[in-house]
Parts: sequence; C-alpha cells; structure tokens
Amino acid sequence: MRIIKDLEEMQMYSFKTRCRGKTIGFVPTMGCLHEGHLSLVEAAKKKADVVVVSIFVNPIQFGPSEDYKEYPRPLATDKGLLEHFDIDVLFLPEANKITPDNFSSYIEVDKLSKKMCGRARPAYFRGVTTIVAKFFNIVCPDFTFFGEKDYQQQIIIKKMVKDLGFAIKIITLPTVREFDGLAMSSRNQYLSVKEREQAIILYKALCLARQEIESGEKNDHKILLRVRSLIGSVPNIRLDYVVFADPETLDEVKTLRGKILVALAAYIGKARLIDNLIVNAK
Amino acid sequence: MRIIKDLEEMQMYSFKTRCRGKTIGFVPTMGCLHEGHLSLVEAAKKKADVVVVSIFVNPIQFGPSEDYKEYPRPLATDKGLLEHFDIDVLFLPEANKITPDNFSSYIEVDKLSKKMCGRARPAYFRGVTTIVAKFFNIVCPDFTFFGEKDYQQQIIIKKMVKDLGFAIKIITLPTVREFDGLAMSSRNQYLSVKEREQAIILYKALCLARQEIESGEKNDHKILLRVRSLIGSVPNIRLDYVVFADPETLDEVKTLRGKILVALAAYIGKARLIDNLIVNAK
Repeated sequence: MRIIKDLEEMQMYSFKTRCRGKTIGFVPTMGCLHEGHLSLVEAAKKKADVVVVSIFVNPIQFGPSEDYKEYPRPLATDKGLLEHFDIDVLFLPEANKITPDNFSSYIEVDKLSKKMCGRARPAYFRGVTTIVAKFFNIVCPDFTFFGEKDYQQQIIIKKMVKDLGFAIKIITLPTVREFDGLAMSSRNQYLSVKEREQAIILYKALCLARQEIESGEKNDHKILLRVRSLIGSVPNIRLDYVVFADPETLDEVKTLRGKILVALAAYIGKARLIDNLIVNAK
Repeated sequence: MRIIKDLEEMQMYSFKTRCRGKTIGFVPTMGCLHEGHLSLVEAAKKKADVVVVSIFVNPIQFGPSEDYKEYPRPLATDKGLLEHFDIDVLFLPEANKITPDNFSSYIEVDKLSKKMCGRARPAYFRGVTTIVAKFFNIVCPDFTFFGEKDYQQQIIIKKMVKDLGFAIKIITLPTVREFDGLAMSSRNQYLSVKEREQAIILYKALCLARQEIESGEKNDHKILLRVRSLIGSVPNIRLDYVVFADPETLDEVKTLRGKILVALAAYIGKARLIDNLIVNAK
C-alpha cells in the first residue's frame, strides 16, 4: 500500500494509471473505518484495477457548533485495516493543502441540498460537494463508492457529477448494520453504553414505517405519528426529522405509492445519527 | 478541423490525446470571434500539441434582463476563421446537454465574484465558473487561454482552478484593441456608428488614469473625478463603475503604489462594455 500525501503526486499517479489502461476505484472517507467503509473497499477491489482510499476529515462540511475537532481519527488502526485489504493507494492529504486559509470556491447543488439534513446543517452538503469534487480532480477515478446510509449525500453527488460533466460513475452500496440493526457510523463511538442501547430505536422506527407502508397503510400522517411516538418513548433522543420522500428528487411524498425513501435524523447524547430505508408501497 | 458536439466523444478524444503524451490547449469562447479570440488561438497553437476551441453561448451567465437571445452567433464565419487557423477540434455542444432543464449544480468563487462586475451582474461569475468547470471536465485541457479584457473573469477562474485542484494552467493574454484603442468585444457589434465613436472615451479614460497615476499623482479621488468627468462629457454613456484595485485580490486600493488595476464598465446604447489597464504607480 502506497501512501500519498502530495496532491500533484496523486494526480500524476492517477494519470499514469489510467494511461496504462487501468481503471481506478475510489473510496473517499473521513477515516475511523468500520465495516460500512470496508464493504465499499471490497466493492472497489472487485470493480476496478486499482483502488485508492482517501482519509480526510473535511473541515468545511462541519458547522461551527459541530464535531470537527472531536471527530475520531484513529489513523494507525485505519492504516492497518487498509493494509489488510491490500489497497493500492491511501491518499492522505493535509488540511492546509485541501482547504488553505483563503479557500473560497464552493460547489452547491441547489434544491437537493436544502432538504432533509440540509435544514439542520445548512453548509454541510456544500462542504461535501466542494471537497468531493476537489478529490475527483486529484484522484481522477473511473468509479467512486458511497454508502446508502448517507442517502442524501450520494444522491447529491450523483447530481453534481451529472450536471458538471465529471466522467465518473458513482456506485452506492447498501448500509451495513450492527448485529441489532443500528446503521454503522463513525459517530456511534460518541454513544455511551446506555445511549448505544437506546439508539436501536431509530432502526426499529424505520422498520415500523416499512411494515406499515408495505402492508398497505396509505395514511402517511398516521404512520409518521406512530414513528414519532415510538422514538419519543425513549428518553434522551431528540428527533430532527423523519420523512417519506421520493428516492430521486427527495421531495416529500404524501401519496404512498411505489418506491419510497423513509429517512430520519436524531440527536442522541453528543451524536447526530441518520438512517434510512427504501420501501415498496403497494 | 474536427467538429465534436457530443460530450462523451469530446471526453474520449481528450483522454486518448493526453494518453498519447500530447498536451491540449483549450480556448473557450461564446463565438462571434474577433482578433482577441484569435490571439488566444495562436497562443494555444504555440503552447500545446492539440488545440480545442469551444463555441457556446452560456445561458446561465446572462441575467434575466440581459442579452442572451440577441448575443451574436455568426457560426459559419466563426467556423471559417477556425478552419483557417487550422485548429484540431471545434467543440460545439448543444445547450440542452450543457444546461438541461433540471440543471442545479453551481460553482461560486466567494468574494472575488461580488466585486466590480459582480455588483451589476450578481449571477454572472457563478454562471461562468460553473460552465467553465464543466468544460474543463469534458475537454480535460493542460492549458486554457483567456483574454485580459475580462480581467475579473480570469482572476476568478484562476482562483477556482487552484481551490478545486484542477490540473490546468490558465494563461492570460493581453487585450487586443481596435485601431483607436477600443477593446475588442463581440458586444461592440451592438453599437451604432455614433456610439462606436463615443465608445473610445472608455479607453481614453483609462489612459488618463494611467497617465496621472504613473506621473505620481497620489490623490485617487482627484483622478477618479477627472475620469468620471471625462466619461460624463459624452452623452449616451452611463458609467457603471471605475475602480483602482489590487490586481490579485481585486480589493479597491486607496494608496496608489505598485501595480494597480484600473477597471471600468459602462453602458452605451444596448451594450455593456468593460475595459481595464494594469498601471505602475511610482
């Protein structure tokens, strides 16, 4: 596993790789790798000739009151995991090279970025798309892999790739869950033992919505009430949102028909967790 | 000269060209080519192995009350000129492929885009940077050429390229002027014979400022008054702005020292014209 920190070196590596006729699979991460990330690495290894994983905690996707400083950075462990998976390149750029002091160019995907998590985190997706695009320019991948847990993120990145003509295929892989259903997330580390037990209610709430929708319930208000009431029954959890939305446009749907994205975000202790399911209404 | 309209075909052409070890010089234009554009084409031919010129009247850089529909599109003449200059590729994408109906991803360079022309044209630079970046993703040039007449534009594009990690060198070439000093512009076509005569006052005003600054005048207000008064002496011209600015940050300067950008914009009849000079204060 080669470690590259320099932007030009990464660009040159990718250029030479592609000119040799090899495809590049890219997994951008913020580190603190879990099985969700590793499922992306495995998919990249299957799909592409050369696999590049980046670890970079992106400062501009965090709001001023958010957890940029506390975000876990277990670099030695992450390196060991990636060594074990025998990837080709770990791209480890320095923050002052990616977002130097006078950084002032931003990419924003209108509409999609304002919904769902965009409401509570107004600069979040702008920070994601800007830095993901910069990484695309540096890593020049053929394929890039994201997890479905960050459903809104991958939809927004697909839209950016299409709108701005990046020659990159975005591949989304299913959410990986803990034994009890909790979606894997680096932020699960923030949870106390008790909060970790309580957090399972989020997945249970999604499953409740799925069950009701798939069994033919058409009253979205009724289902949402039940979901909110279930989550509300657990102390220390504050629901940010739960929505039924079109999986492509993320517009909220009132009529439960066809494929529906059921997505939620909630605060538990220091953590803000998100999760979602795609369900099939009758 | 090969004409390419399809985005993927252009991308593939560029990829193959670069993998053959050839460099690509790119001249993005809105057509209605004049000697200013052609000086960029000549520079591209000297600098790069393969020259790609695009003609695309970018809808999203025009405001709702601006001249998108009237903008001159003499395509046959343009093609003839480019044939004569023996370029390799004329890239001629269709508007519905570059900015389809649901287009919603935008690149904005903060601060620099708000000054000077950004005040009267709030969505202008966002439209420019978004589409120039898309063309960069499709044409994948090593070098891209812009004219100094659009001084603010090339500064903003350089900033975007640096911030977002595009592996492209931006090369700026001097403004090409008519016999009497008027900066060449496709929009000069909008001028009546009389307005064309009157328009020369803009260059004269810049020369007046240069003369005063270079002869050691330190009172910026006094010079600006004289410049405004000179332009005001011509009927039918409405000055939008005239500024003395730092050539890198575009911040207005009060102390006249070192290199200074003297830039202006003015309305004459149906046209909005811009011009600038870099002057050396004592």
